[in-house]
Amino acid sequence: MKTALSALARRTAEPPISWLMATKLAHPKLISLAAGFTDNPSLPVRETRDSINDLLRSPVTGQATLQYGTTAGELKLREWTAAHLQKLDGISAPKIYSADRVLITHGSQQMLYMTTEALCDAGDIVIVEDPTYFVYLGIVQSHGLCARGVRMTADGLDLAHLEQVLESLKRRGELPRLKLLYLVTYYQNPTGITTSYAKKVAALKLLKKYERAAGHPIYLLEDAAYRELNFGNVAAVYDRRGGEQEVRRSQTAATGEKTALAARGFADRVIYAGTYSKPFATGLRVGFGILPEPVLTAVTRIKGNHDFGTANLLQQTLLRAITTGRYEKHLGKLRQCYAAKAAGMRAALQKNFPPQVQWAEATGGLYFWARLPRGVKTGVKSKVFKAALAAEVLYVPGVMCYADDAARRKPDHEMRLSYGNASEADIGEGIKRLGKVLKKFV
Amino acid sequence: MKTALSALARRTAEPPISWLMATKLAHPKLISLAAGFTDNPSLPVRETRDSINDLLRSPVTGQATLQYGTTAGELKLREWTAAHLQKLDGISAPKIYSADRVLITHGSQQMLYMTTEALCDAGDIVIVEDPTYFVYLGIVQSHGLCARGVRMTADGLDLAHLEQVLESLKRRGELPRLKLLYLVTYYQNPTGITTSYAKKVAALKLLKKYERAAGHPIYLLEDAAYRELNFGNVAAVYDRRGGEQEVRRSQTAATGEKTALAARGFADRVIYAGTYSKPFATGLRVGFGILPEPVLTAVTRIKGNHDFGTANLLQQTLLRAITTGRYEKHLGKLRQCYAAKAAGMRAALQKNFPPQVQWAEATGGLYFWARLPRGVKTGVKSKVFKAALAAEVLYVPGVMCYADDAARRKPDHEMRLSYGNASEADIGEGIKRLGKVLKKFV
Repeated sequence: MKTALSALARRTAEPPISWLMATKLAHPKLISLAAGFTDNPSLPVRETRDSINDLLRSPVTGQATLQYGTTAGELKLREWTAAHLQKLDGISAPKIYSADRVLITHGSQQMLYMTTEALCDAGDIVIVEDPTYFVYLGIVQSHGLCARGVRMTADGLDLAHLEQVLESLKRRGELPRLKLLYLVTYYQNPTGITTSYAKKVAALKLLKKYERAAGHPIYLLEDAAYRELNFGNVAAVYDRRGGEQEVRRSQTAATGEKTALAARGFADRVIYAGTYSKPFATGLRVGFGILPEPVLTAVTRIKGNHDFGTANLLQQTLLRAITTGRYEKHLGKLRQCYAAKAAGMRAALQKNFPPQVQWAEATGGLYFWARLPRGVKTGVKSKVFKAALAAEVLYVPGVMCYADDAARRKPDHEMRLSYGNASEADIGEGIKRLGKVLKKFV
Repeated sequence: MKTALSALARRTAEPPISWLMATKLAHPKLISLAAGFTDNPSLPVRETRDSINDLLRSPVTGQATLQYGTTAGELKLREWTAAHLQKLDGISAPKIYSADRVLITHGSQQMLYMTTEALCDAGDIVIVEDPTYFVYLGIVQSHGLCARGVRMTADGLDLAHLEQVLESLKRRGELPRLKLLYLVTYYQNPTGITTSYAKKVAALKLLKKYERAAGHPIYLLEDAAYRELNFGNVAAVYDRRGGEQEVRRSQTAATGEKTALAARGFADRVIYAGTYSKPFATGLRVGFGILPEPVLTAVTRIKGNHDFGTANLLQQTLLRAITTGRYEKHLGKLRQCYAAKAAGMRAALQKNFPPQVQWAEATGGLYFWARLPRGVKTGVKSKVFKAALAAEVLYVPGVMCYADDAARRKPDHEMRLSYGNASEADIGEGIKRLGKVLKKFV
């Protein structure tokens, strides 16, 4: 008898994350620099407790918190989200940064899923960064999409390569199947690279240029999950052992580059995905999107079928943390915390990694991206990976972060190293073990 | 320029729920007997607050609560779920009622969505009850599935009609496209009917009989969302003004019919969907599924792409409410509350509705289902609906609860009346207004 599974189910592969977790379970002493988990000790236990007690102390707000909400999400949270992003981008465009265009989701992952579901049929094409967020590649694979990878430079996408890819799609008559360009624009997972605003605008212009041949809009899906976890300034302060005042100043400083939403004349082509989970508490899972029509209506309807709205307890807790200032204050601490952990990893890398291994400075986010000499493989079947596992240290092999793209071979000499969840001691020890392994093979 | 939307997005219609909510917003004085919202005053504000404070008072459990969890969900909650269902079904089959087969989701709606996604391609067929849960019909429509409706009798599916439908599918060679039978088995939304265990077993046997011609397994998707909201006994107690002791006894009584999981030799064909939102707090959105292979693996992978796990705060809060006994105690109160509201609606219907209108006694769940004489239409464009709206009372037109099925015309002379969210006073007044309207047209 055959299986009754759908084409989607038959395509959907075991996600790398399950394998990483199983590996960790099988090796309890393992130091994992692989997990995308966040820092434990800094989780806002007290802030969450206080926010929830505020809500659940009164029957009125208590009942509102524990009842169903609307599919789009709590209006006040949508209003704050729109206003906050407008402020961060430093412009006034209330029609673009509008609560009406905001949808609250169960983490930004759900936004990525539903957006892809709303735009892409099996066989359609998406362009992604080389490398990119591997859980998004799971969505791509599951939906039977073809991915084309575009190389990156220090400030984001290699525009010449993007144009080359678009040209080749045009030449082959494949543009009608191209639906979106997916970019992780701040402290990218996995490379840590931040895309400059100029590049976002240039990418939007390029996409527009090819729309006639495509016969339909080509969207930019901007994943800004790590936007708030910047610590450029905080890191500097940290190095100088700066006082709390200076840290607070850095919190209110601009969080880097503008989003693509700010690009004049392109708002109807930009889908923005953000999250409150990583900057506050990952156990809360509240993400959001800002979407143009007709994608907004489509995704909202799809959300109605998925779960008809994000759990109100999560939304109300977040909103309360925001309106009381607890969110912003906690974020300041979190930036300090990750800046310190990143500094720890940097120092350990400098001390323990052989000089042939390159890596970029992390100025935000949760990851370092290390490049070994081209000949030295890092995949799960490589000598390096096996030796690392034997030494009880785990990393994400770089190859996992590359889409299947027949136009190029997947690089297999890189690794993603996370300082998110591991303690400072484990970061030091983990990098030391990894350094020993690398010195054998590099 | 064409749209870039996917086939799924182009198919996905505005859900009736959005329209109902918009109508309520446009008529602020409206008494809505349409909403599927739950009772506000009985929401467990204190129980939730205490459970969360238990968790967030200690940094250890606090951090665990606010960190990511696994894709399948909290192990202890899965263990309790499996053991609890086994107890309710009164049998010992630990391999079937096993935590390994349980998946925690963002409400049972997400389980329904992912299961359908995992089994059905566009053009596939599902069999549903006539009438059925209209939000499930949204999933069916969005995925481009064909639905076949099967009539119901007082104890569930009309088995002769089910066989007739299966035969006709076989005759037309359409069985290879049939993937599942969807049943809402306890206090069905919208009719209030509970399916007898004998009928579940008989339905499973029938499905099995046609599997050879189908060439693949045909699953029974059992949606038991209202299972815990039974008040057969409680209602009796309520009518006799019984003391707390008797109420407590009724809480521990068997919650009615066994689930299809108990059917010997059919466990690999049963997908069970349940929820903790409706029996506790709808703002928490924690549902679950028990699934056989290969559906379990497929749905878990799909969940990985949707959101890689249900928010830990929701799961831990629920688990804490369960282990402290708060959940069970609250459920007892909730049964009393809904039993009282159902009794109020019954009394109002007896007093105000014309005798030509029939309805069944509610013994659980949230709904009465009223049948007008066949000639009197109740759809949104009907005179009855318009007159009801003019009288500021809203119901769900029965026609919305019927799948698109070319084999029969959709009945259009029924209405779903909910006592879930409206206050007892509003239930009385709402039914009075509706009775006046009906007397004009019946």
